[in-house]
Amino acid sequence: MEAEQFETLKATLWDFMKSEIYPNEILFFQQVHKIRELGPSHWRQPPIIVQLREKAKARGLWNLFLPVDSAKLAGRSGGGLTNLQYADCCEIMGTSNHAEFAAEACNCSSPDTGNMEVLARFGTDEQKKMWLEPLLDAKIRSAYAMTEPEVASSDATNIRTSITRDGDHYVINGRKHWITGAGNLDCKIMILMGRTGGKEAPTYTQQSQILVPMQTPGITLVRPMETFGDDDCPKGHMEILFEDVRVPVTNILWGEGRGFEIAQLRLGPGRIHHCMRMIGQAERALSLMCRRSMSRRAFGQQLSEMGSIIQQIAETRAEIDQARLLVREAADRMDHLGNRDHYTRKLLSLVKAVVPGMAQKVIDRAMQIHGGVGGSQDSFLPFAFVGARNLRWADGPDEVHWRTAGKLELSYQTKSSPLYEIGLYEHDKSVPFRAKL
Amino acid sequence: MEAEQFETLKATLWDFMKSEIYPNEILFFQQVHKIRELGPSHWRQPPIIVQLREKAKARGLWNLFLPVDSAKLAGRSGGGLTNLQYADCCEIMGTSNHAEFAAEACNCSSPDTGNMEVLARFGTDEQKKMWLEPLLDAKIRSAYAMTEPEVASSDATNIRTSITRDGDHYVINGRKHWITGAGNLDCKIMILMGRTGGKEAPTYTQQSQILVPMQTPGITLVRPMETFGDDDCPKGHMEILFEDVRVPVTNILWGEGRGFEIAQLRLGPGRIHHCMRMIGQAERALSLMCRRSMSRRAFGQQLSEMGSIIQQIAETRAEIDQARLLVREAADRMDHLGNRDHYTRKLLSLVKAVVPGMAQKVIDRAMQIHGGVGGSQDSFLPFAFVGARNLRWADGPDEVHWRTAGKLELSYQTKSSPLYEIGLYEHDKSVPFRAKL
Amino acid sequence: MEAEQFETLKATLWDFMKSEIYPNEILFFQQVHKIRELGPSHWRQPPIIVQLREKAKARGLWNLFLPVDSAKLAGRSGGGLTNLQYADCCEIMGTSNHAEFAAEACNCSSPDTGNMEVLARFGTDEQKKMWLEPLLDAKIRSAYAMTEPEVASSDATNIRTSITRDGDHYVINGRKHWITGAGNLDCKIMILMGRTGGKEAPTYTQQSQILVPMQTPGITLVRPMETFGDDDCPKGHMEILFEDVRVPVTNILWGEGRGFEIAQLRLGPGRIHHCMRMIGQAERALSLMCRRSMSRRAFGQQLSEMGSIIQQIAETRAEIDQARLLVREAADRMDHLGNRDHYTRKLLSLVKAVVPGMAQKVIDRAMQIHGGVGGSQDSFLPFAFVGARNLRWADGPDEVHWRTAGKLELSYQTKSSPLYEIGLYEHDKSVPFRAKL
Amino acid sequence: MEAEQFETLKATLWDFMKSEIYPNEILFFQQVHKIRELGPSHWRQPPIIVQLREKAKARGLWNLFLPVDSAKLAGRSGGGLTNLQYADCCEIMGTSNHAEFAAEACNCSSPDTGNMEVLARFGTDEQKKMWLEPLLDAKIRSAYAMTEPEVASSDATNIRTSITRDGDHYVINGRKHWITGAGNLDCKIMILMGRTGGKEAPTYTQQSQILVPMQTPGITLVRPMETFGDDDCPKGHMEILFEDVRVPVTNILWGEGRGFEIAQLRLGPGRIHHCMRMIGQAERALSLMCRRSMSRRAFGQQLSEMGSIIQQIAETRAEIDQARLLVREAADRMDHLGNRDHYTRKLLSLVKAVVPGMAQKVIDRAMQIHGGVGGSQDSFLPFAFVGARNLRWADGPDEVHWRTAGKLELSYQTKSSPLYEIGLYEHDKSVPFRAKL
Repeated sequence: MEAEQFETLKATLWDFMKSEIYPNEILFFQQVHKIRELGPSHWRQPPIIVQLREKAKARGLWNLFLPVDSAKLAGRSGGGLTNLQYADCCEIMGTSNHAEFAAEACNCSSPDTGNMEVLARFGTDEQKKMWLEPLLDAKIRSAYAMTEPEVASSDATNIRTSITRDGDHYVINGRKHWITGAGNLDCKIMILMGRTGGKEAPTYTQQSQILVPMQTPGITLVRPMETFGDDDCPKGHMEILFEDVRVPVTNILWGEGRGFEIAQLRLGPGRIHHCMRMIGQAERALSLMCRRSMSRRAFGQQLSEMGSIIQQIAETRAEIDQARLLVREAADRMDHLGNRDHYTRKLLSLVKAVVPGMAQKVIDRAMQIHGGVGGSQDSFLPFAFVGARNLRWADGPDEVHWRTAGKLELSYQTKSSPLYEIGLYEHDKSVPFRAKL
Repeated sequence: MEAEQFETLKATLWDFMKSEIYPNEILFFQQVHKIRELGPSHWRQPPIIVQLREKAKARGLWNLFLPVDSAKLAGRSGGGLTNLQYADCCEIMGTSNHAEFAAEACNCSSPDTGNMEVLARFGTDEQKKMWLEPLLDAKIRSAYAMTEPEVASSDATNIRTSITRDGDHYVINGRKHWITGAGNLDCKIMILMGRTGGKEAPTYTQQSQILVPMQTPGITLVRPMETFGDDDCPKGHMEILFEDVRVPVTNILWGEGRGFEIAQLRLGPGRIHHCMRMIGQAERALSLMCRRSMSRRAFGQQLSEMGSIIQQIAETRAEIDQARLLVREAADRMDHLGNRDHYTRKLLSLVKAVVPGMAQKVIDRAMQIHGGVGGSQDSFLPFAFVGARNLRWADGPDEVHWRTAGKLELSYQTKSSPLYEIGLYEHDKSVPFRAKL
Repeated sequence: MEAEQFETLKATLWDFMKSEIYPNEILFFQQVHKIRELGPSHWRQPPIIVQLREKAKARGLWNLFLPVDSAKLAGRSGGGLTNLQYADCCEIMGTSNHAEFAAEACNCSSPDTGNMEVLARFGTDEQKKMWLEPLLDAKIRSAYAMTEPEVASSDATNIRTSITRDGDHYVINGRKHWITGAGNLDCKIMILMGRTGGKEAPTYTQQSQILVPMQTPGITLVRPMETFGDDDCPKGHMEILFEDVRVPVTNILWGEGRGFEIAQLRLGPGRIHHCMRMIGQAERALSLMCRRSMSRRAFGQQLSEMGSIIQQIAETRAEIDQARLLVREAADRMDHLGNRDHYTRKLLSLVKAVVPGMAQKVIDRAMQIHGGVGGSQDSFLPFAFVGARNLRWADGPDEVHWRTAGKLELSYQTKSSPLYEIGLYEHDKSVPFRAKL
Repeated sequence: MEAEQFETLKATLWDFMKSEIYPNEILFFQQVHKIRELGPSHWRQPPIIVQLREKAKARGLWNLFLPVDSAKLAGRSGGGLTNLQYADCCEIMGTSNHAEFAAEACNCSSPDTGNMEVLARFGTDEQKKMWLEPLLDAKIRSAYAMTEPEVASSDATNIRTSITRDGDHYVINGRKHWITGAGNLDCKIMILMGRTGGKEAPTYTQQSQILVPMQTPGITLVRPMETFGDDDCPKGHMEILFEDVRVPVTNILWGEGRGFEIAQLRLGPGRIHHCMRMIGQAERALSLMCRRSMSRRAFGQQLSEMGSIIQQIAETRAEIDQARLLVREAADRMDHLGNRDHYTRKLLSLVKAVVPGMAQKVIDRAMQIHGGVGGSQDSFLPFAFVGARNLRWADGPDEVHWRTAGKLELSYQTKSSPLYEIGLYEHDKSVPFRAKL
């Protein structure tokens, strides 16, 4: 999008946040609370989301996540932002109480965004018509079923759920958990990753991705996984049991054995959407920290006049700004070099490794300045904290991202760094300190 | 208690933990969950606690917290441990899922322990008979009402709730929050701190402590404060409104204007009971960390064989052991020098500043090794985490304890350190690098 | 400079580093060592610097630091880089063993760069001819005399050295220390900051800056201050005594009472030159870390295959990249908004607070991977470490920069942040948990 | 030693520090400086050390390190302290400017203490007479030659220097570095670790230790290794070349193939002597930090009144006290259970991993409060810093100690922890969130 047009869009988005999102945050919490009390048969998006979607659409704040190329494939206008531009928007949406409240209102929430991209890129026309169209209109929701309880799923080659060909159908058996969004009654479709190939096949061709309608017989929603006691109602991070679940062979995405490739393409940018929003969450925490320090006294001094508080505020600003610059650099590289470029991949891993931890630290600090209130229902901070904490494993643990980035760095150093050749100093040792007898 | 006898006691306590506490942890959670669903009129200790109390009594694991002198004042046997011995017991009890589950079963839970000590030391015979006796038998529960929403209550001189003499009564008006235990229907008595003296009186004589029966007219339980979404049912950290609450003048403790003194004496040891339990929570987290690392593989390696995991385990052991040694040193000093000794006071502040943060860090690390499960309902870790996090402000924020300890250190250095005199080096400068023209 | 031309310049600079700087690093150390042995009357730049200067000039790598406007004022071509472009060059020059070895060769070293800028902006034509011309040609060197032993000079209003008018002269009395470069026999001129106004004058007009030729009677070079035992021969961080040092009134810069203003303008960009070079030092440390890990085995594994080493490499990359992005952002802002802009000033302070500590940490880590060799004469790391460590106070301690940035942040938040208004949640409390009797 | 007698000893030691050590610190530095200027043929202990030795002997402050059993084997009185008691003395001696200045004066310095212990335990009567006697009287000095440049010597099985039998002699060939003390002309004997067995022998029997007189032909002192530019004159951490160095077969210690065993026994307690002294260094840094904060003003406030400074002081106290308690716990365990006990070994590793890093951090903080002076020749801090930094690798890198401790912890957990069995919660999943179709 052109720079000027984009500035207008950002202003519109800020205005939407101020007039529609922040004033409705308590209502959002209350509606979620109500739904939880009513039980599983009422898990749908709270009414306020549905209302705000119409307002977002009307203001052109719809499907902003959709890259130009995917938009074309999807036969849609809308979106068309660069990754760098979307980083700004995503951060702004990320300043809402629940990191995805505004994102839900603008149809930019996970896991639907990633699923829509996969469908736009790899879906057949029929698949697009059936699932992508209603997703783009937020008429239905979707889930992405990858993680399994028995194995370290951050290493996708471990995945065990079986997808077995049986005539015109595939038969799916296995157990998944942390399947976000699957608790929502509006969730109609799941993209599932499972094993079509045996251990003897090349490692990265053993997995496939397949479309599984939620209503298919054999699917049991066992329970929502909780994080710090929160069930994430009404989306839910569901534990799901698959017992002889049959879907037509045409439901396979992009062909058998291409699951790993799809995952690679999907996860790169998708995961940093969470990070972009985390920057927004951290900014809000910093703002609260400043506000509290301006309004509270202890030991005869306003908090904002205490050296240690001032330093904490500055350190927080430094950490947020550095993290944001890293996110933007990664986004900008994706725009110009694609996400297969060596340095881009390293940056994407670094972003995923750095940002959630930064947000957790910053939010923890903001809580501490608030005393007890900081962790209570009167503050957005505990929910933000849990969100940041979860993100440290939710798309692969920090450690896996550090590992990926470290290996890419080693490879860069040995191949291309102009400094790598220098090494240690070799001194002349011909004149010894004391000669031998 | 004699060393040998004490070893037997510890063995009995460990056995109680293994046979009665750990196997009932899920039941405890389920009962709490049920009570919460039933609503405010059902907030009582879950039945399992009541059952376990009988077993604890039968095994002599009752009122262990009660120091020898308080036991005498209370006209009771039982207790009689040194602070150092109680540190061991408190840590063992602290290994239960909820940090106070075992402590509740052994009548060693807060805020009752502190209240019992205050009543034993400062109560009249009548007050003891009325409130201390049933507390020692766990027939009733109690609350301690100090913190207020409008002021930084970590500085107790800020407290505003008014206690005004009116004939034979005091009339109380004000608002408190985070009053732990007050949501429990068995909570019958509250020790309240408020202002009897005007701003013109000497600062540390403006406050008094007074007994307020929960059933006194004018008391409204506004709501339980939540921490990370948890209402701590069935105890509750209550927000309470006091409107013209009248109690007889005989309810004052130790005399008008002595509230600050009582608080000082109460808070010292009481607060490190939480820290002692936190060592237990941290030990359990370390144990889980090891267990997970022995049973999980990633990238072709068992976690327990990865250098970074092994190092984390060792760092955790070092942090726990150092913190425990600090706690024990403080307890030992209290036993030998009392808690008014200069170095003891510094140690008590250091313990309060160090231990909760240590526990939070350790538990966070254990969660990370577990991936998503670490923060879920399948793990004790998120509850332990929230407990540690809360303790960073619950008895005064870390920062206040650092401040106290730092001032005591400066005072020690200037008065007594053998090194303080040494200073910087004063070199001979009579031969300059280059002389003046 | 145009982008394409600038890419050529960078390539030339890299080539210069590889062909002239790195191969001469040991020679540089040896020559410095020799000069130190010969004593104070031999403190001049080592011959290799003088030789390399000619090569740098010949390749157009001369006075790169000079901004377009200053170049114009100085009547010179050369320089003409934006701050952002200079950041790149400065980082590249900063990869030499001693952080300023390459910078010296390219006449881009401190404190001469800052002094040249001050002279270009505030000097009279005569002052420029006398001092700026030879500095731009590296025929002489200069010093900047600000810091004093008796006061916390990071707060410039504390400075006490007196500059007293006496007819056509000013008479200077006082003691300075850490006056970098003043030990060099080629150092001919000093810009001195001192007090012309009394305590009754407005705080920021009490100080002036004045030109003091090194050969003026009354100046004693007392000794070089050492850092970790290093005297920084042949420049020296000198302690200097001023006793009735007389200079003509025309030596004042920009007029009496403008010392503070000059300092503000000088220090902003000047100080981040050090930070830019520190990025280069950190990059070299990372490169060494990778190289060591590729060539060393322990416990049956190559270091580069150990998870903990790989993670350290990735963390280092993340820290360096984030710091560089912060430096570049600050430089870019200076280019577009000037260094008086609110956000630019905050960024400049953050850069100064963040970068030296980052570099210290990174270099420490690189040393650790090397074992004993990492801190020995065989490695560039200990010198880099000391350089980074010193920078944490050399241009004002970290704490002062955090303080400045924190205050600017608080001011931004209260005036302009779109989030500042949101605050805590105000829940409806009309239905209490339990109503009063 | 009996408690009362020991208190007298400590008081004597403190008095010695105050009257003899601290007042002579500058003289010590000056003498070392002079020796360095005079060159390798003057490397002997500075005269002040020699003088102070007589005073230390006269006061009974001699060979304090010598355990009761070793003293008996050595046929000496003196020493006789428990490890716990020696910890106190070692810390006190460690408060001198150079961590081993007082230790040298009391004949408690490395590597002589370790060598004396080895000789007392494993030496023949003749070896004791020849080398142990003069060492106990400080008439000669010694070295311990283990580390080699080509291999990661922290894993002793890597050591390559060959010790080959040739008739009645062993012939030694190889290169060692970081051989502390070997630069001193008074150093007469070296204990060398090398390879007598081939790769086919059991791993831990391939190495032997052997006595090598410094005057044996074939030994070249190549150079002193420097740490941060310091050659540690007059002891030196020497690089040494061994070319066909022949010693009689009777020089072998305890028999061929027992080198590893000797190393294990030697290194345990020896290494924590350094850590004990580091506690002293850290205490002195804290004292300086307080002193500086009491005497310096910035921004209109005394440093000691700033919240952030007070907190740093408290954190430093907490870190030092926790580290000391860990050291004392390890020493106490060694006294009661020996250093082969499982938990003792873990504690010894933790001490080595924790203390040097703690000291480095604390000293760095103290430097920062001093500004430039903190790292200069006017302060003891930079030397203390380098000492702490070096200790992070000098007896095996931190990482190796963490690794050892982590493995011991895992082994303890799986075998003996009462908590290890508990595991995660297993919830009843029979009633699903939503049943399958």
